[in-house]
Amino acid sequence: MAQKPSIPKGTRDFSPVEMAKRNYIFQTIREVYALYGFQQIETPAMENLSTLMGKYGEEGDKLLFKILNSGDFLHGMTPDEMTSTSTLKLASRICEKGLRYDLTVPFARYVVQHRDELTLPFKRYQVQPVWRADRPQKGRYREFYQFDGDVVGSDSLLNEVELMQIVDTVFQRFGVRVCIKINNRKILTGIAEVLGAADKIVDITVAIDKLDKIGLDNVNAELAEAGLTQAQIDRLQPIILLSGTNDEKLQTMRQVLRDSETGLKGIEETEFILSKLDGVPIELDLTLARGLNYYTGAIFEVKALDVQIGSITGGGRYDNLTGIFGMPGLSGVGISFGVDRIFDVLNQLDAYPREAVSTTQLLFVNFGEREADYCLKAISAVRRAGIRAELYPDAAKMKKQMSYANAKQIPFVALVGESEMAEDKITLKNMETGEQQSVTVEELIESLTP
Amino acid sequence: MAQKPSIPKGTRDFSPVEMAKRNYIFQTIREVYALYGFQQIETPAMENLSTLMGKYGEEGDKLLFKILNSGDFLHGMTPDEMTSTSTLKLASRICEKGLRYDLTVPFARYVVQHRDELTLPFKRYQVQPVWRADRPQKGRYREFYQFDGDVVGSDSLLNEVELMQIVDTVFQRFGVRVCIKINNRKILTGIAEVLGAADKIVDITVAIDKLDKIGLDNVNAELAEAGLTQAQIDRLQPIILLSGTNDEKLQTMRQVLRDSETGLKGIEETEFILSKLDGVPIELDLTLARGLNYYTGAIFEVKALDVQIGSITGGGRYDNLTGIFGMPGLSGVGISFGVDRIFDVLNQLDAYPREAVSTTQLLFVNFGEREADYCLKAISAVRRAGIRAELYPDAAKMKKQMSYANAKQIPFVALVGESEMAEDKITLKNMETGEQQSVTVEELIESLTP
Repeated sequence: MAQKPSIPKGTRDFSPVEMAKRNYIFQTIREVYALYGFQQIETPAMENLSTLMGKYGEEGDKLLFKILNSGDFLHGMTPDEMTSTSTLKLASRICEKGLRYDLTVPFARYVVQHRDELTLPFKRYQVQPVWRADRPQKGRYREFYQFDGDVVGSDSLLNEVELMQIVDTVFQRFGVRVCIKINNRKILTGIAEVLGAADKIVDITVAIDKLDKIGLDNVNAELAEAGLTQAQIDRLQPIILLSGTNDEKLQTMRQVLRDSETGLKGIEETEFILSKLDGVPIELDLTLARGLNYYTGAIFEVKALDVQIGSITGGGRYDNLTGIFGMPGLSGVGISFGVDRIFDVLNQLDAYPREAVSTTQLLFVNFGEREADYCLKAISAVRRAGIRAELYPDAAKMKKQMSYANAKQIPFVALVGESEMAEDKITLKNMETGEQQSVTVEELIESLTP
Repeated sequence: MAQKPSIPKGTRDFSPVEMAKRNYIFQTIREVYALYGFQQIETPAMENLSTLMGKYGEEGDKLLFKILNSGDFLHGMTPDEMTSTSTLKLASRICEKGLRYDLTVPFARYVVQHRDELTLPFKRYQVQPVWRADRPQKGRYREFYQFDGDVVGSDSLLNEVELMQIVDTVFQRFGVRVCIKINNRKILTGIAEVLGAADKIVDITVAIDKLDKIGLDNVNAELAEAGLTQAQIDRLQPIILLSGTNDEKLQTMRQVLRDSETGLKGIEETEFILSKLDGVPIELDLTLARGLNYYTGAIFEVKALDVQIGSITGGGRYDNLTGIFGMPGLSGVGISFGVDRIFDVLNQLDAYPREAVSTTQLLFVNFGEREADYCLKAISAVRRAGIRAELYPDAAKMKKQMSYANAKQIPFVALVGESEMAEDKITLKNMETGEQQSVTVEELIESLTP
C-alpha cells in the first residue's frame, strides 16, 4: 500500500466537528457586524507580489509564500543570471504573485482600486485565510483565518466606540468573560515627550509591561539599561504604578502629561471613548503598545478572564492606510478577532451551544427496501418541517446503524418495521435515555421541533 | 501618485453586494445539505505536490499553481542542474507544494489520512476556492469556488436519490426552474458492448454529446471517422434519437441492451433512482457523458430552463475514489454546484430575495454630539431587537448623510434633532415613499420588525 498521504506542515484539515464550531464562531461575529452595518468583502488569495512586498518589513518579505509563474518561468534568463542572482532576487524574477499575508494590505489595495465605487465611511468585514512561511509550532500555523473589521474614511471616535460595543456583544454572545484593554498611541507619544525620550517609547512600554512579572525594581533596572536617566525613571514612577479606576488613571495622566499637547489629546480621546461605553468591561492600560509602528490613536486588545491565553482580539486607529498605494489621508480604525484562539477558549470553557454544533437530529434505521420506501415518505415530511434527518442508505446490521448514530451523536432514531408500517406509526427512540415511543409522523415532527 | 494597484488576472474582488448574493447562495445550499445530514469539512489551500501531481492528466499538472519553497530554494543545486533541467522538472525541485486544483483529490486525501476517525458512510460537503493556471477568459477564472457534496462508503442507490432531492430542493429554494439530466455509465458501456465497439466508448459518447451542437449528420460522420462501421452507426441511431418519457426510453433501451449484462444493470439502476423521485423534474439523457473516465454508475447534470448557460450542477457515482492513495474499494457519489454560474443565473432572473441581500435597515442621521448621544441609546435598543442599524459617525452635512443612505440602499432613516429630543421621539423617514412619522423607540422597533 502507498504511503499514507499528508498535508504540508503548519496546515490543517478541519473535521466536521471542528467546522461546526468554527462556523458558530464565524456566524456569531458576522451577525454582530451586520447589526452595526458592516458589509463583507473578499479579495483573492493571490496578490501581485508588487502589492505585498515591502509592506511587512524585511522579515515579512521572506515569510511571503510566492507562486511560481506558470509556463516557462525561466523565459529569457541566461544561465549566468540564474546562478549569479541572490535567492530573493531570483524568486522575484520567477514569481509574480504571492499568497495574502494578512487582510490589511489587500483591504488597502481594495479601497484604492475601487475608490470610485465606494461610499465613505466604508465599514467592511472580511474573514479569509492568510498564509505565512513561519516556522510552525504549537498554536502557530502557516495557514490561518483572520477576521477583520474596519471603518475607513471617518475620523470620528464614535467608530472606536462602536467597535468596542461590537467586541463586547460578540463575547457576551459567546458567554466568555473578557477585559477590553485600551490605550492611545498619543498618550505614549506624550510620555516620551515629557521625558524627553522620544526614541525610547518602545523600551519604556516593554519594561512597564513586565511589572506584574518582574516587579518594580527590575522594571526600573531595565529602564536604566535602556539608557533612561535616573531623573527620567523617577518621573516615570507614577505611570508605572498607575492604578485605580479609569477616571483616576486619566486624572493622574492629565497631570503627568500637562506639557504635551499630543499627550493631552490622547487623554481627551480616551475619555470620550470611555464615556460612551457605560457597562462595557474596558480598562485603560498604558502598557498596551501593540502594533506601535502602525497605530496612531486608540489601541485595544481583549483578554479572556477565565482562560490563560494571549490576546484574543486586538486593533486600533491608523492614519494613512492607503498611502502606500498612492491615496493619502484616509484614516481608519479596525479590529481583528483571533478566531483560532477564540476556538481554543470556547473549547476550554466548553462554551459551544449544543444546538450550534449538533448536526443530524434524527436517523431512520433501514430495515430493507419496503421499509426504506416507507421511511423516504416520512423523512420528506420531516425535512420539510426543517428537521435535519437521515435514512441510513443500506439495510445494514442494526448494530452498525446504531454505531453510526452514536458516532455522529444523533440524538433520536426512528425505527420502522413490519408492525410500524401496519399501524402507520414510527417507533421513536431517544438515544440518551433509551426511551421509546410509538408516534405518527406528525407527532414525531412536533416532538423534535424546538 | 503611484500606479493604481491591481489584482492578478483571472482573480476577482467581491464587493459587499456580490458577497451578500454569494452568501445567500452558499447559505441556501448549506442548509439543504444539513437537512440531509451532510457535514462540512475544510482542507488546506496548499497540498503537497506529490498529492496533486498526476491526478489531473498531463495538462492538469501544468495548470497547477506551484508554491516556491521558502528560504534557500536552490539549496544543493549545481548551476549545471539548474540550467540543464526541464522547466517542469526544475519546478518540482524548487516547489514542494501547490494550490488545490479541485475539491475531489483533497477529499480523497482527507478520507485516507483520517480513515480511523471516520464513520462510514461519510456524508461531507465542502465549499472552498480552487486555483487553476488556465488562460483567463469570460466566465473562466484562475480562482473560483467549488461547492461539492459527496457520500463515500456506501453503494446504495438511495444516495443518488438523496442527492437528486438535494438538487431539487436547492433550486426550488432559489426559485430557479431546472431540468435534471441523468444517465448511467453502465448504459454507455452496454451500448459499446452490443455494438462490439468496447474500445470506442469514448469516441461514441463524445460524438453523441455533440448532437445538440452539430446535428445528427455530423455526429454520424464523426462516428464513421472514429472507425465505426456503417452497421454499427445504423444500430446507434435509435439511441442517438431516443425520445419520449423516461419509461419509454428505458423500455427502448432494455430492448437494445438485452444482450449486455452491464447495460441492463445500468437500466435497472436508473429505473430504481427514477422510481424514488416522483415529482422531481428529471430526465434520462443518453448524450450525457461528462467525466466519463471517472464516473462508473449514475451521471447527472442540471440545466437552468430559463437562462442560456452551461450546466449549473453536475456529478455522479465513482468507484475507487481513494485508490490513488492506497485505500481501494471505496465507492462514492457526489455532486458539485457551479456557484459562479448559479450567481449569474440568479442575477439574470433577478431572483435574489430582497431580505437576503439587504444590509443596514436603519440609519440614524448625526446632527451633533448631543443628538448623537441620544441616538446611541436608541440604537442600542434597536440593535438588541435584532435590527441592523447605523449611526452616521460624523455630524456631516445632511445631504452627505442622505447620499450615504441612498448608496447603501438603507430603507429607513431616523432623524433626531432638538424637537425630537424634547418630545423623546424619533422622526422615522421611509426612503422609498418619502413618508415621515414621529415615533417612540418602541414604535420604531415594532414597525421595523418583520
